[in-house]
Amino acid sequence: MDKDKKFEDLNFAKLDTDRLDRTGFMEVVFCQGKSNSQLAEIYDTLLKKYGEVFGTRASKEQYEAVKKVIPEIIYDETSKLLYLEKADKKLVGNVVVCTAGTSDIPVAEEAAKTAEFFGTKVNRIYDIGVSGLHRLLKFEKELKEANCIVAVAGMEGALPSVLGGLVSNPIVAVPTSIGYGASLQGMTALLTMINSCANGISVVNIDNGYGAGYIATQINRLAVK
Amino acid sequence: MDKDKKFEDLNFAKLDTDRLDRTGFMEVVFCQGKSNSQLAEIYDTLLKKYGEVFGTRASKEQYEAVKKVIPEIIYDETSKLLYLEKADKKLVGNVVVCTAGTSDIPVAEEAAKTAEFFGTKVNRIYDIGVSGLHRLLKFEKELKEANCIVAVAGMEGALPSVLGGLVSNPIVAVPTSIGYGASLQGMTALLTMINSCANGISVVNIDNGYGAGYIATQINRLAVK
Amino acid sequence: MDKDKKFEDLNFAKLDTDRLDRTGFMEVVFCQGKSNSQLAEIYDTLLKKYGEVFGTRASKEQYEAVKKVIPEIIYDETSKLLYLEKADKKLVGNVVVCTAGTSDIPVAEEAAKTAEFFGTKVNRIYDIGVSGLHRLLKFEKELKEANCIVAVAGMEGALPSVLGGLVSNPIVAVPTSIGYGASLQGMTALLTMINSCANGISVVNIDNGYGAGYIATQINRLAVK
Amino acid sequence: MDKDKKFEDLNFAKLDTDRLDRTGFMEVVFCQGKSNSQLAEIYDTLLKKYGEVFGTRASKEQYEAVKKVIPEIIYDETSKLLYLEKADKKLVGNVVVCTAGTSDIPVAEEAAKTAEFFGTKVNRIYDIGVSGLHRLLKFEKELKEANCIVAVAGMEGALPSVLGGLVSNPIVAVPTSIGYGASLQGMTALLTMINSCANGISVVNIDNGYGAGYIATQINRLAVK
Amino acid sequence: MDKDKKFEDLNFAKLDTDRLDRTGFMEVVFCQGKSNSQLAEIYDTLLKKYGEVFGTRASKEQYEAVKKVIPEIIYDETSKLLYLEKADKKLVGNVVVCTAGTSDIPVAEEAAKTAEFFGTKVNRIYDIGVSGLHRLLKFEKELKEANCIVAVAGMEGALPSVLGGLVSNPIVAVPTSIGYGASLQGMTALLTMINSCANGISVVNIDNGYGAGYIATQINRLAVK
Amino acid sequence: MDKDKKFEDLNFAKLDTDRLDRTGFMEVVFCQGKSNSQLAEIYDTLLKKYGEVFGTRASKEQYEAVKKVIPEIIYDETSKLLYLEKADKKLVGNVVVCTAGTSDIPVAEEAAKTAEFFGTKVNRIYDIGVSGLHRLLKFEKELKEANCIVAVAGMEGALPSVLGGLVSNPIVAVPTSIGYGASLQGMTALLTMINSCANGISVVNIDNGYGAGYIATQINRLAVK
Amino acid sequence: MDKDKKFEDLNFAKLDTDRLDRTGFMEVVFCQGKSNSQLAEIYDTLLKKYGEVFGTRASKEQYEAVKKVIPEIIYDETSKLLYLEKADKKLVGNVVVCTAGTSDIPVAEEAAKTAEFFGTKVNRIYDIGVSGLHRLLKFEKELKEANCIVAVAGMEGALPSVLGGLVSNPIVAVPTSIGYGASLQGMTALLTMINSCANGISVVNIDNGYGAGYIATQINRLAVK
Amino acid sequence: MDKDKKFEDLNFAKLDTDRLDRTGFMEVVFCQGKSNSQLAEIYDTLLKKYGEVFGTRASKEQYEAVKKVIPEIIYDETSKLLYLEKADKKLVGNVVVCTAGTSDIPVAEEAAKTAEFFGTKVNRIYDIGVSGLHRLLKFEKELKEANCIVAVAGMEGALPSVLGGLVSNPIVAVPTSIGYGASLQGMTALLTMINSCANGISVVNIDNGYGAGYIATQINRLAVK
Repeated sequence: MDKDKKFEDLNFAKLDTDRLDRTGFMEVVFCQGKSNSQLAEIYDTLLKKYGEVFGTRASKEQYEAVKKVIPEIIYDETSKLLYLEKADKKLVGNVVVCTAGTSDIPVAEEAAKTAEFFGTKVNRIYDIGVSGLHRLLKFEKELKEANCIVAVAGMEGALPSVLGGLVSNPIVAVPTSIGYGASLQGMTALLTMINSCANGISVVNIDNGYGAGYIATQINRLAVK
Repeated sequence: MDKDKKFEDLNFAKLDTDRLDRTGFMEVVFCQGKSNSQLAEIYDTLLKKYGEVFGTRASKEQYEAVKKVIPEIIYDETSKLLYLEKADKKLVGNVVVCTAGTSDIPVAEEAAKTAEFFGTKVNRIYDIGVSGLHRLLKFEKELKEANCIVAVAGMEGALPSVLGGLVSNPIVAVPTSIGYGASLQGMTALLTMINSCANGISVVNIDNGYGAGYIATQINRLAVK
Repeated sequence: MDKDKKFEDLNFAKLDTDRLDRTGFMEVVFCQGKSNSQLAEIYDTLLKKYGEVFGTRASKEQYEAVKKVIPEIIYDETSKLLYLEKADKKLVGNVVVCTAGTSDIPVAEEAAKTAEFFGTKVNRIYDIGVSGLHRLLKFEKELKEANCIVAVAGMEGALPSVLGGLVSNPIVAVPTSIGYGASLQGMTALLTMINSCANGISVVNIDNGYGAGYIATQINRLAVK
Repeated sequence: MDKDKKFEDLNFAKLDTDRLDRTGFMEVVFCQGKSNSQLAEIYDTLLKKYGEVFGTRASKEQYEAVKKVIPEIIYDETSKLLYLEKADKKLVGNVVVCTAGTSDIPVAEEAAKTAEFFGTKVNRIYDIGVSGLHRLLKFEKELKEANCIVAVAGMEGALPSVLGGLVSNPIVAVPTSIGYGASLQGMTALLTMINSCANGISVVNIDNGYGAGYIATQINRLAVK
Repeated sequence: MDKDKKFEDLNFAKLDTDRLDRTGFMEVVFCQGKSNSQLAEIYDTLLKKYGEVFGTRASKEQYEAVKKVIPEIIYDETSKLLYLEKADKKLVGNVVVCTAGTSDIPVAEEAAKTAEFFGTKVNRIYDIGVSGLHRLLKFEKELKEANCIVAVAGMEGALPSVLGGLVSNPIVAVPTSIGYGASLQGMTALLTMINSCANGISVVNIDNGYGAGYIATQINRLAVK
Repeated sequence: MDKDKKFEDLNFAKLDTDRLDRTGFMEVVFCQGKSNSQLAEIYDTLLKKYGEVFGTRASKEQYEAVKKVIPEIIYDETSKLLYLEKADKKLVGNVVVCTAGTSDIPVAEEAAKTAEFFGTKVNRIYDIGVSGLHRLLKFEKELKEANCIVAVAGMEGALPSVLGGLVSNPIVAVPTSIGYGASLQGMTALLTMINSCANGISVVNIDNGYGAGYIATQINRLAVK
Repeated sequence: MDKDKKFEDLNFAKLDTDRLDRTGFMEVVFCQGKSNSQLAEIYDTLLKKYGEVFGTRASKEQYEAVKKVIPEIIYDETSKLLYLEKADKKLVGNVVVCTAGTSDIPVAEEAAKTAEFFGTKVNRIYDIGVSGLHRLLKFEKELKEANCIVAVAGMEGALPSVLGGLVSNPIVAVPTSIGYGASLQGMTALLTMINSCANGISVVNIDNGYGAGYIATQINRLAVK
Repeated sequence: MDKDKKFEDLNFAKLDTDRLDRTGFMEVVFCQGKSNSQLAEIYDTLLKKYGEVFGTRASKEQYEAVKKVIPEIIYDETSKLLYLEKADKKLVGNVVVCTAGTSDIPVAEEAAKTAEFFGTKVNRIYDIGVSGLHRLLKFEKELKEANCIVAVAGMEGALPSVLGGLVSNPIVAVPTSIGYGASLQGMTALLTMINSCANGISVVNIDNGYGAGYIATQINRLAVK
């Protein structure tokens, strides 16, 4: 730990410009809760340093604010990602991002685009929830071939348990807040996944597609090394 | 399980067109969380396949979107159901849908209309909560005659416990989010019903009128077979 | 409601001797929390009235106490049931009681024996949890033929969700307290089952095999009527 | 508030000898968590001061310890009360203590004996839970005549809701820890009672028979004044 | 229980017109969750029957709707009560309604006005929370003279515990949703009050001023009888 | 406790004008939940009495209302503080207010400005969360020199645990509601901090910057005495 | 941060021998969960290094094990502390440790003895809970004189709120697990204290007397510096 | 999915003998909740099939029962693993298993031995919790070199957050039930880890060392492929 390595001190933020060296990933911006002016300054600084920039949970209003300083910034309304990416990125390996239902797609897209931003090749398989098992089994071969599966599900979150019994590689389970009543804004799906009787399943926060895409990238990098 | 049976792959959704054969019920659409364009395409596809279509938890905005492709679609503002039904459906058997209070009616209507869509004859008895027991007892005969009772209640959710001691057929208890404070958005009513000292009571999710109407139909079908 | 119909008043207990007429089921004893002398008197009274008696959640010590007044009483250590049954009971219909794992069997046996006590024919299928899907699918035909399935599962409780997509008749889901950590003594499995994306699933209390066996009997009776 | 009024300072305890004047009730001992020697000293001091003494939640071991200094002390194993009472107490008024089931009796006895210790006439009506409504209705007249009803119930705790619609005087609801699984050691019954749709119901802690007996006495005293 | 006593059947509601005879209180309307047309019909029916009408948790929009059929209806924006009262009501007895803070006043007013509607004389003492004990002690005499105290408090809800040690008559504790963070929308205050080490405290639902005013009236009636 | 010491009785509020003498801090206004007219009267009264006034959790609308009676009142939109301060306040001692992230700054500013209002010299160190440890270690010396550290963090709230191992003076940990999903609106950060394996950490309510600034001032005053 | 400073590596434990320099407190042993042999080795190592040793939450069995290697070790059964202390320690300053009830004393003793081990002069004031306010007010002067108050309370935990309004110095609130039912093993007291309307209160974990004694020492050291 | 692939049907258990082919891991036995005779039969069957056998959460009593049929079975009291392993297993790759404290070692050993059973080379680094950061930083190089880190921590569970900022490969976080009070038997540590502000962290169930060892093996296999 070299505390003298540089970080960019904006006072309200201390951008961790050493992170790429330490972890292999540049700093990603958590947009939620930041003021427009703070966000614009952070995006501007990171873009100048890295030639690209990536942020999660951005509101439309934040997008407009950042757009003023970076006109070419891209905002994906589905995943709430706000980013600018280097051209001609080469995607490698094989990660499957799948969902139980159609309503889980926004979180899945956050995962998929995060993985792609960091160089991972992603195969999307959406709406293969367990109440129609034949749909899932139809994709058994594709699921088995992935280095890592990101499994996104709300409501009771049973999808990862079924996948866990079918494949050999790790599954990163993402509970979503899709549901109502006793779904407890996703806590039920989270608890389901944490208690899975199947093996090879680890869990990230509710709606945390970003986190899952990050981990899938780590695993994929080890596999393609 | 024949994984090669068809499903309709819209990419963002894989419509389970085999479900009617497997379970006796066509696929019903969970509208919440789907985009307008996704929903319109799903409704259009299902209607073409089955000649009718049924969805739950639709917003007014979603209704407007679907209406553009299916002008004759019906939206019930009370129950938030969005559907189009074959004419001259013959309703059979006898299911009672009852509520503890007037404020529980939207959930009860979701249950009742679901059961009717799937061919069940429904007897509605609303506002017979336990704080005025004579109202409930007045309907004792009708309650006893039902093949299944759907009992809908919020706040402390005591209605199913009282019914359970009076009748011989199963009761599907539906907790509602009606209440405030320590009702915990319906969790209290759910816990009450799950712990009932009376027999013959099983429980579905908070505000899940649809699920209760579905199960009542299953039981009613067995009874009228 | 005829309040003048008899009940047997033992002061510490008021045995509901009218229940068989009202509901088709004689009163069953909840043994937990009753003193030995209370329990012995209740068993004795009910046995004299009905020629048989059935109680749940009995401890070994309670069994010894009741045995003193009813030497032929039967205690099943697995299910903690304490009962004496009329001979030559004819079992009818078809209910499946299945479990996700081996450790869920005590609860399943409570369900199965309750259903049998009340005249239901039971088909036991144990240890078909979703982490080895081929085991479950092997029994697809048997599962489809049941008038009602009692699905018993702990940990994440995903079994009913998978069954719900395969069969046409109702599933009574029983969460168990099997698991550890975030299984929260069965609350996680309960929440999973309550939020199932599959249809036809209603839920009873954690480890409440008795309740599930009762409801399965109600449904089975409607089916064989 | 006169801070100079006496209290008995035992260092580890400061006995509130002014309480009888302030509130009309002498100090009652919460035995749980106190050491044997502390308890013996407290009992001895209070008995000398008042000629009687009353404590709750005493273990058998604590009873033995106190017995050494007060040989005539009485221990009720059902209610876990440890007390010595003046002779020839005149009981006045009319309070009903009722339970939903037989297993709730220990808590009810704590309530009833507390009320009696403080001079209240108590009418016990046990095992009138709502799953056999005719039992409860049989006692409708007695219930209506009470100045206050203490309603003790575990599991789903529906009894107070039904009583609330029948009577004109206040009901003190006592949830008990009787039940299992999602009864959450009595939290479910507590929540049920707090959310009652019926009027006139207020709630005390789980298994707090003492508190209910105290409040019933306060109300009864106002009524007989 | 005479189930043949009349109730007014509006289909969506069954007005309990027998309640005044049974309990001494006419039916009060829980406005939340009822449609405008339902509410107007209920108010109209009750007003015709009783010459007065009283409802809780009404929105401004509901007030406007009811006003169309009952122009003289009164809406109190602070307490959200919607009512019309007979003139020249004589108020009797003595109930104190007090609050810990200024922000708790809306709930306190619901309690006070409910008690007054049912004929109780109310003494309001607001903002005497425990962080400035001298304020509370200044009113010690007034507090001691009340037949019943309604104690309204949010945040940590410590007020009833302090009052409980000072007075001889019952305290009805009302937790409020005032606070933030770990106040959990009032659950913390509710739990505090339920666990009070002081005696004579029973608890109603969060923000349930109505329920407390009702119980205070019951107790006050017994005292002035 | 002298209950006859003055308080200012506005009926809806009893301003604790004795508090400055008792505790060394004048009364601070909790604005949330107070009506505009109540707030204006309270501010006016306190300002006249003390020559300055300080309130927390004020909305913009409340600011406008108070501004009408106190035109020079200051509203800080970041921290939601509404105050007017004596000029030329001398700040003493040394308190560090630090945050884990940029989004935690509003709560930190509430803490910092509160401490400054009460005369404490504050050193702000923002965005030194544990995922880039070198940033935090860079400030090790400044952190060690503070008489008290206010550590503000949302999400998992790990910052105080790391600080606790580095410094000798007390840390007041403030969990924030920054995060999503299983952060449970700050409950997770609160639980983390309460369970810290490091020593010297005590915790205040979620987002309670004010409380932390108050305690830091108490400690700082003891240190500079 | 000098990572090369020594720590004692026992493999199963890495004793932080640098801690005294960094924080002013030597490492204290958390005994719970450690094996007998591990504990003995840790105690032996620390004692040799520092000439004294201090551990919390030790069982009697652990005491016996440590006694074999350190015959003069002292075990306090009340507080579960296991320690050996240098002779003739000079205690400075003034910290009050007070409790609401007698049953809270074990936790209070953990706090008091911890503070004393680290050189703090402690004034114990036990059983001054708020249900008999005159007891607490009797000690007002002593409470005001302390540099820091450790306030220990179970059940509803109201004691710190009342103290907070009386004194000028910081209060460290310690919730205890004393209570039953909805006290939720101390969570209720913790929540009460976290939400206190009084100022100057921060909170440590349930039953964490050690943590409170540590912080009180930190504050006391600043005051006596 | 070939449902006709063999499983071993013991009635009470259906051993998934196809799992090794599907997932690369043979079936592991969850011992908890199984009867002695069931366990012995399962171990015997698996051992005959695979030449080795591995089970988790075994009690000493279960060990004795299995030992009767497999005398050479090994029971590790620390980790509660019950197993028999092929000789001369070659361990490959590099996984670090680390703990925050000494009391977390039993869970860590479950993880480490599981990984080793499945062929992974494990580097154990115990007691490097964040309250003495220099210990952790001393091992920075070893931590960075691992293909996967299993981070085991109880109490507030901050360890993975600190690691996440230092390394490039995935961290599997295992919360433990070590702690007390508001640690909520490990739920706090679980929530902390799920909400980590650091990247690359996914979580398994409380005390689920087995699950973490399994996933670490999956990742390690991908890395060494």
